[in-house]
Amino acid sequence: MAQTASMLAIGDELLSGRTKDKNIAHLADVMTMAGIDLKEVRIVGDEPEEIVAAVNALRARYDYVFTSGGIGPTHDDMTADAIAAAFEAPIGYHPQAYALMAKHYEARGMEFTEARKRMARTPEGASLIDNPVSVAPGFHIGNVYVLAGVPAVFQAMLEKIVAGLPQGPVVLSAAVECPFGEGDIGGPLGEIQKRHPDVVIGSYPKFDGARYSTELVVRSRDGEALSRARSEVEAMLADLAASRST
Amino acid sequence: MAQTASMLAIGDELLSGRTKDKNIAHLADVMTMAGIDLKEVRIVGDEPEEIVAAVNALRARYDYVFTSGGIGPTHDDMTADAIAAAFEAPIGYHPQAYALMAKHYEARGMEFTEARKRMARTPEGASLIDNPVSVAPGFHIGNVYVLAGVPAVFQAMLEKIVAGLPQGPVVLSAAVECPFGEGDIGGPLGEIQKRHPDVVIGSYPKFDGARYSTELVVRSRDGEALSRARSEVEAMLADLAASRST
Repeated sequence: MAQTASMLAIGDELLSGRTKDKNIAHLADVMTMAGIDLKEVRIVGDEPEEIVAAVNALRARYDYVFTSGGIGPTHDDMTADAIAAAFEAPIGYHPQAYALMAKHYEARGMEFTEARKRMARTPEGASLIDNPVSVAPGFHIGNVYVLAGVPAVFQAMLEKIVAGLPQGPVVLSAAVECPFGEGDIGGPLGEIQKRHPDVVIGSYPKFDGARYSTELVVRSRDGEALSRARSEVEAMLADLAASRST
Repeated sequence: MAQTASMLAIGDELLSGRTKDKNIAHLADVMTMAGIDLKEVRIVGDEPEEIVAAVNALRARYDYVFTSGGIGPTHDDMTADAIAAAFEAPIGYHPQAYALMAKHYEARGMEFTEARKRMARTPEGASLIDNPVSVAPGFHIGNVYVLAGVPAVFQAMLEKIVAGLPQGPVVLSAAVECPFGEGDIGGPLGEIQKRHPDVVIGSYPKFDGARYSTELVVRSRDGEALSRARSEVEAMLADLAASRST
């Protein structure tokens, strides 16, 4: 069985429309390339009880949970405390994070304010996730990875994490362009899917403002199974094209 | 209390990274303008049990649930059946949807295939959501609104729905640009938030590749409360700027 992942994106700004999330789609791409199945995503606001409930639901079901957002220095950054609450762990300054940030700010002649010190707090038992962009680290406890919401930082942290995860066999996919609408192919396509339970056939309608066409995508971790199903899809489309032109 | 909304985006393609969702951010904007608080979003794949569980969790907690995707004519479109299962309702052709689609395809000389007929299926007790773009309707049962995933259709359906919902008082917001990083303002900003429990102050870091600045957003349904808190934020920033220039 492939490993499974889930994501919890945290922040009022994602739900108010102020910020358009970029991290979900990025995680989806990275997981697919790593051969890990992203199974569920949730978005909740800056409310500790909501974060706790979502993290506990996701970490119980999936191999990995990745969170984004809420680990900055301001009052609306509640993620570290919520993760500690979810794990029923005490929270405090992580000595390594504290030392690294103290040194960073000192070198720049910047004050290591109480607000900045908040970013060194982690649940007891957490290990740090390196932040090559702006120093303040993420952290990792159990199967939960807590990342920043700023996309450049989220991406850099994720790259570090994924390099250390066991990679699964990648899902292979073949896209077949289909000039017909889904309504023309839905019947025979469903039959092909039934004959090939070892592949997943996705059908994605495209609408150009006047008419529909379809992109068909055949996916499998088994290359030969993929080829067989793809050939049947192509033959079905060729038959349909021939019947239309007579 | 403001009305609350949630969203369930459905589709393997959103989780594989193949499709970048556009409907979540659109719904967020529309809800904010309508004065309805979007509280939670979930994304799940084309798996009936996952859809059922998510819909039942969301409809029990929030005033409205909006779903996107999975109502087309192909085998991977499972939303209508899953919604029926969630409501423990039988599913069948909705006479009005069936008639309207039969007429549409007849007028265009297109076959009303079994696949297309699938799009006329709704749970018993559902009412239709008009699709001004491509005919096949969405539907509405209980507090759940089932919309297409194609963004042009999702948007058109949502516009119809929102026009019929009671609009709440809109959340007012004021953005204050802050040239300092969150670490410089986190302390005093938290104090301002504590003194103004009737507003929500959001702090959003921006990273230009070299240094951080911050956008501060004060939100409230009470315009006077908003003004008072905003003035304090601006005074705090002016004090900080003065102390930096001495």
